[in-house]
Amino acid sequence: MDFQPTSSLLTDLYQLTMAQGYFRMGIAERNAVFHLFFRKNPFGGGYCLTAGQAEVMEFLSRFQVTPEEIAYLKQLTGNDGNPMFTQDFLAYLEQLSLSVTVHAMPEGSIAFPHEPLLRVEGPLIQAQLLETALLTLMNFPSLVATKASRICTAAQGDAVLEFGLRRAQGKDGGLTASRAAFVGGAGATSNVWAGHTFGIPVKGTHAHSWVMSYDSEMEAFESYAQALPNNVVLLVDTYDTRIGIERAIEVGQQLKSNGHTLAGIRLDSGNLLELSIMARQMLDDAEFDQAAIVASDDLDEYKIERLKQKGAKIDTWGVGTRLATAYDQPALGGVYKLAALQDETGTWKGKIKLSENPAKTSFPGKLQVNRFYDSHGMMLGDQLYDEWHPGEIPVFSSSPHSIEQVLVPAFVNQNAVMPKRSIQEIQAYAAKQVHALPAGVASLVPDEPYMVHVCPNLKHHQQQLINQLSQ
Amino acid sequence: MDFQPTSSLLTDLYQLTMAQGYFRMGIAERNAVFHLFFRKNPFGGGYCLTAGQAEVMEFLSRFQVTPEEIAYLKQLTGNDGNPMFTQDFLAYLEQLSLSVTVHAMPEGSIAFPHEPLLRVEGPLIQAQLLETALLTLMNFPSLVATKASRICTAAQGDAVLEFGLRRAQGKDGGLTASRAAFVGGAGATSNVWAGHTFGIPVKGTHAHSWVMSYDSEMEAFESYAQALPNNVVLLVDTYDTRIGIERAIEVGQQLKSNGHTLAGIRLDSGNLLELSIMARQMLDDAEFDQAAIVASDDLDEYKIERLKQKGAKIDTWGVGTRLATAYDQPALGGVYKLAALQDETGTWKGKIKLSENPAKTSFPGKLQVNRFYDSHGMMLGDQLYDEWHPGEIPVFSSSPHSIEQVLVPAFVNQNAVMPKRSIQEIQAYAAKQVHALPAGVASLVPDEPYMVHVCPNLKHHQQQLINQLSQ
Repeated sequence: MDFQPTSSLLTDLYQLTMAQGYFRMGIAERNAVFHLFFRKNPFGGGYCLTAGQAEVMEFLSRFQVTPEEIAYLKQLTGNDGNPMFTQDFLAYLEQLSLSVTVHAMPEGSIAFPHEPLLRVEGPLIQAQLLETALLTLMNFPSLVATKASRICTAAQGDAVLEFGLRRAQGKDGGLTASRAAFVGGAGATSNVWAGHTFGIPVKGTHAHSWVMSYDSEMEAFESYAQALPNNVVLLVDTYDTRIGIERAIEVGQQLKSNGHTLAGIRLDSGNLLELSIMARQMLDDAEFDQAAIVASDDLDEYKIERLKQKGAKIDTWGVGTRLATAYDQPALGGVYKLAALQDETGTWKGKIKLSENPAKTSFPGKLQVNRFYDSHGMMLGDQLYDEWHPGEIPVFSSSPHSIEQVLVPAFVNQNAVMPKRSIQEIQAYAAKQVHALPAGVASLVPDEPYMVHVCPNLKHHQQQLINQLSQ
Repeated sequence: MDFQPTSSLLTDLYQLTMAQGYFRMGIAERNAVFHLFFRKNPFGGGYCLTAGQAEVMEFLSRFQVTPEEIAYLKQLTGNDGNPMFTQDFLAYLEQLSLSVTVHAMPEGSIAFPHEPLLRVEGPLIQAQLLETALLTLMNFPSLVATKASRICTAAQGDAVLEFGLRRAQGKDGGLTASRAAFVGGAGATSNVWAGHTFGIPVKGTHAHSWVMSYDSEMEAFESYAQALPNNVVLLVDTYDTRIGIERAIEVGQQLKSNGHTLAGIRLDSGNLLELSIMARQMLDDAEFDQAAIVASDDLDEYKIERLKQKGAKIDTWGVGTRLATAYDQPALGGVYKLAALQDETGTWKGKIKLSENPAKTSFPGKLQVNRFYDSHGMMLGDQLYDEWHPGEIPVFSSSPHSIEQVLVPAFVNQNAVMPKRSIQEIQAYAAKQVHALPAGVASLVPDEPYMVHVCPNLKHHQQQLINQLSQ
């Protein structure tokens, strides 16, 4: 299935006013290089797991401003009541088809601060028009994929189920979150629309309202087991959890005698540590050692890590709000910066965005990332360099066994050229990337930095531009 | 224009498994009452501004599971590999058209904890199937509308511009956020797609990249003024803000001599208090007292309140990430609870969801809210009561001048019956509601609680059910 359609007007107005500016000033077709990157890993972690590239490809492939959208833009006015956009610009916009070349990290790649997730090269006007959409389509999926990856790290191989739809940021906020959570390692979602749209496994059994709609919990459990005998995970905390577990076991015995299984029970409140240990004991004593214990209740990577450390007997972690909204940091600060522009003679000139904080100043040129692996396939470090001024390969603690260029051609000659991968392949690729991280980088609170060597040539070029601009 | 289409599969899987359960147990058509409410005002504030009702109406009106969606559900399997859903249930689902009756607070209404934003009455199976979609369509818009309302309160009548798209939760997360921000009082959005879709005013001029694409800031400003003379707000902080303002003034003088105006300048970094005071002085000295000062830089209601208190000279507040993602509390904990169900004899029985925390226990019955106003149209307080067991009108500090039933018929006999309002009308209604709040309730940190009287009959009924369930 496909992504929901995206309008080519998925942009901030100022991209259009700037585009008209470039158009009118005759510099629209000058070639430019822009990079999409972030400056700080989310959640205080050691890495970012990137997602959204597949939708970016689809957006680029379909980019077309429709006559109906042109008509909308035509009636926008400036502060004197006159039209904001000129006829010739709107005519240009209507016939525009993208000729930019886009390089991207494959979806599910690990990225570090200042490394381009996307690199856009082509006419200034086009690169500018794409800014907002590219940020929107990359920022949130990368954020949620990273959150999911951290949650899966904490869960140490236990199943993670995403069910944040009801608290997600709108219906498609939920759709996007479910897909990104799967990329990051969640095994399934409760979101049926996402399952249908993207081919993600869907899971779920019953809520408290099921129990409440019967006169007794026992009747509710028995009815559920009768109605859906091959999907029985019983929510045991509507009234008294211990009694709920006893009843679930009783229903499990009925299921057994009918040739079915009690798939598990779910705990959604209370002391999950104590309740899960009690539940495991009760289930095991009744010879239901195959029945899984599912837990939920505002879980995130920190709560899961603590529960695991203390010995909670939980097999599946249901994670909702805190995953789907990336609750503790609900935005990734991705930016999109001009890094090079041809002048009137066609000569490329490096560009930077200065910042009072030197660490926030962007890098000029046409960036690429080399990633170095040891003989076990573990990441040794990265090198950030300018393809126009490459430098020596840096020295690592052990000598690299293989080198990977992280940015690959993604959109060339109006075609998406990245190999199309299934969502399962993207998830597997992401898992491989995360497992290749040094352990100290992958942990929830990293205790070693990942080495990203900035090529000396690149640093030198940046410093030259800083000096020029400060004069 | 319309909302983006929403699949009827916008739901958690367990709603469908429960629906099949009700169907197979023969209780699907028993009438039920569900309420959608929250338990705590967001952001530590004194109220919630509700939004999303228009999209809920559209979702209900179009609800239809398509044959293609049925085919998807048909191939889902349970833990033994057999189909999860039965043929007869899927056939039922395919022909289902909603017969529920929905009451809603009009969009833009103020709501308080435990008051139903929506009340759904009808066959248990239908009410259950709607749960997730109703929560998704109400939770996030209400959250962002409330955030916008708080930001507008802090801005004390200054213009507020929403431009959070790039950090929003996916493309439609952005679309939803822009609409809700407008309902809550934002005057315009940068999001062109939202402008086009919902008829919201759009605003924007240029970014740092415009300045960076020229060899000098002056050249960049002059070019912009030449290209878009009727939409000139110059971003003055790319290099040195004081010099940037001087250059903007110079360009303003050129604009004047050509019969145009400098609409304003924008500050996006640094000490906004000092810079805005300096800018105002410089602009006034140069006789640009009409030029507006626009400020942005991770603003939220608290920063705006502080800047206003200290005397910042800012006319327009640009608010992005912190509004569009509701950064400091990115989810509203709205819930949807069964409150009454007919038994096999057709007799209504009250239902509650118990909680260890008594304040979290839900109310039974068929709830309605009376809102009492004084003769100046200010809210005196609310009364939460069960339509089946109404009680006396509560006593207020001053005697009520008018009473409003807050929940109104919204979806009856398969038709949306709430008066259709334009987005501007909804915004105006919301503003009127916020202005009718007691000042201590409307402030960012409320210093008085709003009185929601729970009718004694309702409390009594709840206690009866608590006693029954605790036996």
